[in-house]
Amino acid sequence: MVKVAVLGYGTVGSGIVEVLKTNQELIEKRVGEKIDVKYVLDLREFPGDPYEDLIVHDVDVIMNDPEVSIVCEAMGGIGAAYQFTKMALEKGKNVCTPNKAMVAEYGPKLMKLARDNGCNYLFEASCGGGIPIIRPLQTALLQEKIVAIKGILNGTTNYILTRMEKEGADFDAVLKDAQALGYAEANPEADVEGHDACRKIAILSSLAYGNTVNYKDVYTEGITKITVEDFAYAKKLGATIKLLGMSQEVDGNYYAMVSPFMLKNDSPLYSVNDVMNAILVTGNTLGDTMYYGAGAGKLPTASAVVADVIECAMKQGQLIPCTWNEGDLSLGQMENDKRHFFVRAKSELSQIESVFGKVEAVDAGIDGEMGFVTEVMSEKEFASKAEALGSVVSRIRFEN
Amino acid sequence: MVKVAVLGYGTVGSGIVEVLKTNQELIEKRVGEKIDVKYVLDLREFPGDPYEDLIVHDVDVIMNDPEVSIVCEAMGGIGAAYQFTKMALEKGKNVCTPNKAMVAEYGPKLMKLARDNGCNYLFEASCGGGIPIIRPLQTALLQEKIVAIKGILNGTTNYILTRMEKEGADFDAVLKDAQALGYAEANPEADVEGHDACRKIAILSSLAYGNTVNYKDVYTEGITKITVEDFAYAKKLGATIKLLGMSQEVDGNYYAMVSPFMLKNDSPLYSVNDVMNAILVTGNTLGDTMYYGAGAGKLPTASAVVADVIECAMKQGQLIPCTWNEGDLSLGQMENDKRHFFVRAKSELSQIESVFGKVEAVDAGIDGEMGFVTEVMSEKEFASKAEALGSVVSRIRFEN
Repeated sequence: MVKVAVLGYGTVGSGIVEVLKTNQELIEKRVGEKIDVKYVLDLREFPGDPYEDLIVHDVDVIMNDPEVSIVCEAMGGIGAAYQFTKMALEKGKNVCTPNKAMVAEYGPKLMKLARDNGCNYLFEASCGGGIPIIRPLQTALLQEKIVAIKGILNGTTNYILTRMEKEGADFDAVLKDAQALGYAEANPEADVEGHDACRKIAILSSLAYGNTVNYKDVYTEGITKITVEDFAYAKKLGATIKLLGMSQEVDGNYYAMVSPFMLKNDSPLYSVNDVMNAILVTGNTLGDTMYYGAGAGKLPTASAVVADVIECAMKQGQLIPCTWNEGDLSLGQMENDKRHFFVRAKSELSQIESVFGKVEAVDAGIDGEMGFVTEVMSEKEFASKAEALGSVVSRIRFEN
Repeated sequence: MVKVAVLGYGTVGSGIVEVLKTNQELIEKRVGEKIDVKYVLDLREFPGDPYEDLIVHDVDVIMNDPEVSIVCEAMGGIGAAYQFTKMALEKGKNVCTPNKAMVAEYGPKLMKLARDNGCNYLFEASCGGGIPIIRPLQTALLQEKIVAIKGILNGTTNYILTRMEKEGADFDAVLKDAQALGYAEANPEADVEGHDACRKIAILSSLAYGNTVNYKDVYTEGITKITVEDFAYAKKLGATIKLLGMSQEVDGNYYAMVSPFMLKNDSPLYSVNDVMNAILVTGNTLGDTMYYGAGAGKLPTASAVVADVIECAMKQGQLIPCTWNEGDLSLGQMENDKRHFFVRAKSELSQIESVFGKVEAVDAGIDGEMGFVTEVMSEKEFASKAEALGSVVSRIRFEN
């Protein structure tokens, strides 16, 4: 019998209890041992809840119970959750969490603490919610040198962009509606400004390339400036606009960023819509593989945490290897990162071509401006040409 | 140092050597030990090949070398490959293979032989080529009761269907071209009649549901009767046509089949084109996740075999658990399996509705016939209504 404690009985915490209870029999059969929730830590009472007798208010009850070998941290934040995570790991208890903020901030430190205490710190649900992505990176892709990761990593922004595209609606209007429907938070900044995707791409990149990508080093641009007109141009180009967290290795330099990108309809990410997420991973011999699913939500996220719980239960007393090492990965200068750019400018084609050289012009019928796609150039080169042209309304990076 | 032998130096066999050599350093770092190819078994000589000194012609050299702990069976077929696989497992050597014919025919038997001899029989590359699908089913999805698997599991047929759709070209013309380009074999039957996809869905279903689905029990229909006109109707319906290997549990009954399906454009499988494959797995708490990538090809397939090799190398002396047990899974009566059907018939709408009840009519401008989508009904019910109508030109199953 493996005993689990869940810290926090909110959406994900209660989901973890639900998944473990719903599939208990099947899990027992596969693991060869029963996994049971012994405690749920929460400051609140839950009268009438089927598991109200599991609720405890004192974390020490959990920490001092040697029977509890796995702790699911579903509190969120990096305050008390950090203290409790450290306490559990110091006691040799495995910790499983969907807490991306924690992993992005303290991942390597907590993994070391776990190793030093003969236990594990696992975080499958921290990136891509229910999508198995960390486990494939740690098992099925070990033979691959990963050269790029490109992901739709945030459900809220993907929902907003999908509706803007389909309905020709404004960002503000769709955001408001998304808030009313519960798809966006009252304070939507972490999502719409890309901070959430930033932490996720930092975590995935650290796992893929082997050293820590500090999320603070990742250039991050949100979707608040994307307009209906941008989608009109995208449509003309057979493209759409997605917020991507992406990183790649180019000639030994690693680049990472979060930014809206135009994607052509031959990209497997093109048709990932609404709240769904997907992560495209490119390996040097395997090529592209993509992992798709619900990037958030109670049960999908909880399911991924339970996958971690099961791995701990099946490997009791073992240290689970991880490709994320303690060194830091320094990112290349953003200004040297190269790609096509989509640009809207208040100039004639001849003026544009005199500055940018050959471009692919695109007319979306918007008065007084024209759209075009540049040749591949560095961010620096683009910035200098845009300044020289002097009439750029907006630009969106172009992917593939 | 882990020593590997590769049986068969054809496309995949040479790919396995290439992946292990190309990424040797990185693999050594991750595994904590060097993995090296000691022998390659082939009847032929390979003068000038960079690894020609590894070639042996006598399988006993490999079987009697205690240093060899992992054997990659890349011979194909179920003749000599079966004998050699048994020999290796009886010697306690792990066997890793992309051989779907072998796994579908002898999987449970060989897994038992492996267990009895303290080693493993792994086959990540047998389904979906380079796509990590078996490993996720064995690790990331253990907490899930899998309720459905729907996959584009054959690259050749997907390539043909994609070109038929995009070019409005006939099956025969595209097949001929695909053969010339090397995307289809001179004898294309195994692909176009669905036999290849049948073995793959049998394997995946066995892993997902826990007992053996005999591939011979899986109803299998190929794509040879799909026409340009069918695609014209599909387009009108916002759909496309894909060959799916699929299985699902409905009210405790398991159904499995390989068949062309119409898929609406909101399905994540809709935009999986050309030779790419994808597998959509539905879990009871996680919902849908999809795994996408190259379903065939030298290096992608080899990469997946090497993932197996790495797992064996990291777990030396351990039995790797597998969800596929020895019991048989009996499939429900096909005639009770229910869905919508797309139908072309030489009748008026009123006649059609007098037999089928309410239908969604679709006009693709084809003289003397009309298309329609039925309500959900069983295969049996459909067959009897189609007979009653008496004018059915063709029918394609409809998915979701």
